[in-house]
Amino acid sequence: MSDRAKVIFQPSGRRGEVEKGLSLIEASRQLGVDIEALCGEKRVCGKCKVRIEEGAFEKFGIVSRRTNVSVWQEEEGKFITPSQRQEGYRLGCCCKVEGDLLVFVPEESRAGKQVVSKAARDIPITWDPAVKVYYVEVVEPTFEHPTGDLERILEELHRVHGLKDLRIDYLALQKLPVRLRGKDRWKLTVYVWMDQEIVRVLAGDQRQNHYGMAIDIGTTTVAAYLCNLTSMEVIETVSMMNPQCKYGEDVMSRITYHMMNKDGLKRMSDDMIQGLNSLVRQACEGTHPPKKKGKKTYLSLNPNDLVDLTIVGNTAMHHILLKLNPEYVGLAPFPPVIHRSLDIKARDLGIKINESAYVHVLPNEAGFVGADNVGVLIAEEPYKSDEVQLIIDIGTNGELVLGNKEKLISSSCATGPALEGAQLSYGMRAAPGAVERIKIDPDTHEVDYKVIGRDAWRSYSKPEEMKTKGICGSGILDVLAELYRSGVILKSGKFNPVQKSSRFRKNPETNQPEFVIAWKEESSIGKDVVITQKDIRQIQLAKGALYCGCKLMMRRMGIEKVDKVKIAGAFGTHVDREKALMMGLFPDCDLDRVISVGNAAGDGARTALLNRGKRQEANWVARNVEYIELTVEKDFQQQFMQAMQIPHMKDPFPHLKNLVPDHILNQK
Amino acid sequence: MSDRAKVIFQPSGRRGEVEKGLSLIEASRQLGVDIEALCGEKRVCGKCKVRIEEGAFEKFGIVSRRTNVSVWQEEEGKFITPSQRQEGYRLGCCCKVEGDLLVFVPEESRAGKQVVSKAARDIPITWDPAVKVYYVEVVEPTFEHPTGDLERILEELHRVHGLKDLRIDYLALQKLPVRLRGKDRWKLTVYVWMDQEIVRVLAGDQRQNHYGMAIDIGTTTVAAYLCNLTSMEVIETVSMMNPQCKYGEDVMSRITYHMMNKDGLKRMSDDMIQGLNSLVRQACEGTHPPKKKGKKTYLSLNPNDLVDLTIVGNTAMHHILLKLNPEYVGLAPFPPVIHRSLDIKARDLGIKINESAYVHVLPNEAGFVGADNVGVLIAEEPYKSDEVQLIIDIGTNGELVLGNKEKLISSSCATGPALEGAQLSYGMRAAPGAVERIKIDPDTHEVDYKVIGRDAWRSYSKPEEMKTKGICGSGILDVLAELYRSGVILKSGKFNPVQKSSRFRKNPETNQPEFVIAWKEESSIGKDVVITQKDIRQIQLAKGALYCGCKLMMRRMGIEKVDKVKIAGAFGTHVDREKALMMGLFPDCDLDRVISVGNAAGDGARTALLNRGKRQEANWVARNVEYIELTVEKDFQQQFMQAMQIPHMKDPFPHLKNLVPDHILNQK
Repeated sequence: MSDRAKVIFQPSGRRGEVEKGLSLIEASRQLGVDIEALCGEKRVCGKCKVRIEEGAFEKFGIVSRRTNVSVWQEEEGKFITPSQRQEGYRLGCCCKVEGDLLVFVPEESRAGKQVVSKAARDIPITWDPAVKVYYVEVVEPTFEHPTGDLERILEELHRVHGLKDLRIDYLALQKLPVRLRGKDRWKLTVYVWMDQEIVRVLAGDQRQNHYGMAIDIGTTTVAAYLCNLTSMEVIETVSMMNPQCKYGEDVMSRITYHMMNKDGLKRMSDDMIQGLNSLVRQACEGTHPPKKKGKKTYLSLNPNDLVDLTIVGNTAMHHILLKLNPEYVGLAPFPPVIHRSLDIKARDLGIKINESAYVHVLPNEAGFVGADNVGVLIAEEPYKSDEVQLIIDIGTNGELVLGNKEKLISSSCATGPALEGAQLSYGMRAAPGAVERIKIDPDTHEVDYKVIGRDAWRSYSKPEEMKTKGICGSGILDVLAELYRSGVILKSGKFNPVQKSSRFRKNPETNQPEFVIAWKEESSIGKDVVITQKDIRQIQLAKGALYCGCKLMMRRMGIEKVDKVKIAGAFGTHVDREKALMMGLFPDCDLDRVISVGNAAGDGARTALLNRGKRQEANWVARNVEYIELTVEKDFQQQFMQAMQIPHMKDPFPHLKNLVPDHILNQK
Repeated sequence: MSDRAKVIFQPSGRRGEVEKGLSLIEASRQLGVDIEALCGEKRVCGKCKVRIEEGAFEKFGIVSRRTNVSVWQEEEGKFITPSQRQEGYRLGCCCKVEGDLLVFVPEESRAGKQVVSKAARDIPITWDPAVKVYYVEVVEPTFEHPTGDLERILEELHRVHGLKDLRIDYLALQKLPVRLRGKDRWKLTVYVWMDQEIVRVLAGDQRQNHYGMAIDIGTTTVAAYLCNLTSMEVIETVSMMNPQCKYGEDVMSRITYHMMNKDGLKRMSDDMIQGLNSLVRQACEGTHPPKKKGKKTYLSLNPNDLVDLTIVGNTAMHHILLKLNPEYVGLAPFPPVIHRSLDIKARDLGIKINESAYVHVLPNEAGFVGADNVGVLIAEEPYKSDEVQLIIDIGTNGELVLGNKEKLISSSCATGPALEGAQLSYGMRAAPGAVERIKIDPDTHEVDYKVIGRDAWRSYSKPEEMKTKGICGSGILDVLAELYRSGVILKSGKFNPVQKSSRFRKNPETNQPEFVIAWKEESSIGKDVVITQKDIRQIQLAKGALYCGCKLMMRRMGIEKVDKVKIAGAFGTHVDREKALMMGLFPDCDLDRVISVGNAAGDGARTALLNRGKRQEANWVARNVEYIELTVEKDFQQQFMQAMQIPHMKDPFPHLKNLVPDHILNQK
């Protein structure tokens, strides 16, 4: 029997072999995963809760069993409830590796706060939320007019506010008689959804209590914006890894998980719901009203105070969340179960906001262009523009929209998660220790770089100060561009056989070529951080898919050049636009016409939260964008292969003249 | 320590002292309660499950404890689950009385099938159910038209059936993709609620599968009609005792139970929901399609096949079912929480029919005239009549409507449940062994009677053949009329001091006067069945309340005589109209203008199930009947006292001349 075991940590996906007998915390350190351990493994803080997953994980080639760990310790019982124990929860400090393991690290146990890259932008929104608040005072019932409680309120809402034919949610009705007779007798604040349904009644004047949330479910990351529905302010932004990552890193592998497992869909959906509920709680706990001069009062919201919620996500995330069979979305001709938007009671979904509130799920364009892209569209409104815009939303999938007010077409391309830093040997999310900028000297092939969480570059730091862990999404393109510009790799993406530094080597285990970005002494994971030939290939595939998609769409529209390129997603926020053009991520465009629009999908969700007209607009645009399936274009393969080259041969960019030495640019 | 213990059986309310050490089955026999015991107490059938209630029941003067019975027997574990055991369930054959007990006999453990008196009448209804079925065939998606599943169906529903702007229930949507791709590929049966929402999709053509249920929740009895929504046939009628009876026999005591117990409302509501679910199951299990010649196929429906449900009930039953605080309904000026009808998802109520179906709860008129009376109105339609109609719905409460197409007024009167046979010493529901007809010889004061379940009268039977147990609602008025006509009681209701038979006596224990209806030898409960002075008083109170209500309403309308009297409710079906007039239950009217309309409330629920226009009509009439609170009329007390006399002094009925001897009629 080997004295080593394979351990995989989810959702980060970090994996490797460790010595048996190590605690899970020690193992996580070796593999570069941060588990919270406030007490320094003294077994007293209980922060290092993790869950041992059970089952055969063929994809990873391991069988994880709860018996593959050391026995239960009494101390764990202080922090882990019996039902959690049933689910496989253990304390990372108490539990030792004794065999192959798949370990899930819950959001709250993850150390090293993520750098939120899905922050809300300041976009113009007209105030018209779906849920509005009204204050009413009614007359007391008498023998002459013993009218019912609800009817007296409806009369007043009609008389004063012009609302009519309202219905009331059954659970809100249950609260009515007592709230109407509270200390503020016969005075109520009434919350009305879409001028149609009363979804909440509160005693007295509580009009200031008016909140909602907009959620963007990405394949890898989920971001949520807690908004005041009266002031329209974003009062809290929270995010988490998509808890479904443990079932597969991309859309297709999750669809496969559903097809291979009887309750797979339910499991993935329930995990997401649970995750959304924890985001809601987290956002509520983080809130406080604006500080008042002299007295500092911090108040937390209650999830009950959230009376509206909007959700965007790609079609697969949409279907999995709603437990709609996603099988056919993954099967040609990829029809979704539903296009149009849905209004579902939060309680039916199991989302713990106000029990009578609705969740509004935005519409899908097609099987591979979902509600997230609709979010981008209603935030960016290309259908109101004269200019031809190319909107690129790079997440785990790439979604493309091209057009203007005359015509809009959309498409998707399988970029994979490489551009987000996932699936690379040392890819990681944007957290402290992640390489985000790099420079490679063309003469010496020596490397200088910067990590998140430290202002000073490597050349100005002691090695041990860097604590490098990996490369995040925004650093990936930088690495590739520098590798190319400095001549470490060739146009084809292959490593140059002539290397000037000792950083290039063949990995003794895999025999694969790799290039060292950070030496072991600079890293906090006790290993060199490298980029391999396979990693470069992944990035090339991603950028090739994207470039080829853009070109094919332009050909369909019959245009040679676009007026504006908008890059959405976290990637767009962090990417060096010049390097993106240099690497041929998308067709040429004037640099000052390339703009980043941040998390436009999330902005779209927020827009729909704050303006109900945008919900109608979303349904309209979802049915009026023409979806084009690029993979069925006859020369798709050829276009794709060409697009993988660096830079694309057919498009010699003028910008590159200044950036890339001639001898490199003129490589054959 | 006494060797006897008090035992009360619910929901029948039968009570008495029994020897300690008796099994609960033996005790139930002594007290005239039927518990099912198929195996004859051999402890092998498990049919005699009962629940020992725990707590101090002040109303009954007992403290019931689960320790007041003999220890748990191993055999009980075969039929009683651990969670039922927790709730206090025991087998009646195994469990012995060792102290005071309140024992609840669940519906399924009650022997002696109830004679359903709430049968459906044949009333004209125009077919227009709220849920309609449509059959659609859609085209397969292609790369050119990869439209979503739902959208393809909606297009077809619009093109072929003219339906538009439909939404779909989230849970129905979940079923859609797989059902669309079943063996009947691209063919579906779609169930649409109110032309607004798809609530069910089934693979292939299943238009014949189209069912709903109408429910009438009475204070004492609940009746349900399972209907085919296409043929409008009532395919099964089921009923049960209201499971809330154990919390109080009338409306006010249940409201009090809510006020005195923190979770009282939830408990009463949950019991009703559970009861309704068992009615649904029972009705479904009893169904089978019409027998086909030659081959006999019995099929049971699945509760899932019920796609619509309508409910009527008085305002308190309505509020308790929906967990709406009923406190203010019991408090002047008695405003209900809501008048208008409600459409609530069955799943939100916990009612286990099709998971996407709605439950339609009819509107309330006022705090004491509820949705059940609205049901009566839409079934009887007095607002379409020229004649002035007096509609009397006698259940546990009496509800009155007076008027015609010019004007309608309604009121309620506290008849109490005496006219239904409840709260009398030997009152019981209409089940085998209940006295339903009686004759008393004016000369000898000897008694002849007939019981339910036996065609021959007492005088043609051997005593032991009668198996008399008590007096049911329909027998009560007969008993009273005969007692009066024969001179056993006086006009005031008091027993005549001059009695001609030995049937009159003073109860040795209570010292109260009583009259024996059936001797011990004729009874199956081992005791004489008697009617006491207190019982007679109860009936007088009930009939006085009713008569006085009718008269005050007529005074309000300024009329002396009504054109038609309609008696609704089970009471109306069984009552001898002549005797009702003789006893002064309601003001004088030609005998042929007094008609029984059966369970008109239930008919109303059924009408609303089969015709959605009736739902609108119900909302209209609920707001257009003027409710009158009679108890605040200045001479109410005086009117009421007078009305308690037999017969009412101010109204010497011509009919009585033939029925009642002059010397009795002319009593002072």
